[in-house]
This record gives sequence, structure tokens and C-alpha cells, in this order.
Amino acid sequence: MSFNVEIIGLLAATLTTASFVPQVLKVWRTKEVKNLSLTMYSAMLAGVILWFTYGVLINSISIILANIITAILVSCIIYFRIRYSKK
Amino acid sequence: MSFNVEIIGLLAATLTTASFVPQVLKVWRTKEVKNLSLTMYSAMLAGVILWFTYGVLINSISIILANIITAILVSCIIYFRIRYSKK
Repeated sequence: MSFNVEIIGLLAATLTTASFVPQVLKVWRTKEVKNLSLTMYSAMLAGVILWFTYGVLINSISIILANIITAILVSCIIYFRIRYSKK
Repeated sequence: MSFNVEIIGLLAATLTTASFVPQVLKVWRTKEVKNLSLTMYSAMLAGVILWFTYGVLINSISIILANIITAILVSCIIYFRIRYSKK
């Protein structure tokens, strides 16, 4: 896999991963979770874990890195969603 | 790339892509968009377009398919977010 291709992958990874940060911060600040779908984030977490596996199997550092970080961020959203829904 | 590896990729793609469908349906039904971050979905759309490019370059059918469909779904959310915010 060429160096340039992996730069595109890492740029893609940075954007899709960073796209979760505003949502995590927004939920953390506002504690408003009623419009967030738990189904969506649970399916996403399962998918992200499978993408990580796929990344390992095809030796793609972009896919591996992106999905480790996304898994952490999605887990934060799921945690907030469950915690603040109970109040 | 082996057949089994691509099955894991397609399963991952199905989950992360399907995880957007409940959010699209929820916004479409409730028309409540104030908790959805436009910044998040705009960065995600840019990232998804780059992932598609990466998928083409490394010949990954899973990445290509996942990101075509995710791009369409994220575009729907961005459309709803802009349309319903104005009301």
C-alpha cells in the first residue's frame, strides 16, 4: 500500500473520527440525550469493532487507528445516553 | 483479499451504515434537530467521501459500498438539520 494512499486514509479517518467529538462534547455539556438513538450507537459500536478486525486482516493502519478511536468515542456517547436517560 | 475477510468487511459496513437509518427515520418523524450537530455531520460527510476514495485506491469493495450508502444517509440528515432548523 503506497504512502500517498495511506495519507488519504488517515485524512478520512481524522475527519470521520473527529466528527464524533462535537457530539460527545454537546451531550457532555447539555446532558440532553433524548434525540440520540441508542439503537444507532449500539449498531455503530458493533460495526466499528468489526471494521477494526477487517483493518487488522487487510493490514490497513488507517482503518485500525480510526476504529480504535471511534470505538472509544461511541462508547462515551452510549454511556452518556444511558446515564442521562435515567434522570 | 480473501473471501472471508471481505465478509467481515461487508458485515462491518452493514452495521455502521444501518446505524444511521434509525437516526434518519427519527429526525424525519420527529422533525427535532436541535441536538444534532451540523459540524459533526459535515465533517463526517467529508470524511466519508475520502474513505470512498481510499476504498477505490486499495480495491476494497466493503469500504466503497459502505461509504456510498453512508454518504447518502448523512446527506439526508444534513438536509433535515438545515430544513427543520429554519422553522
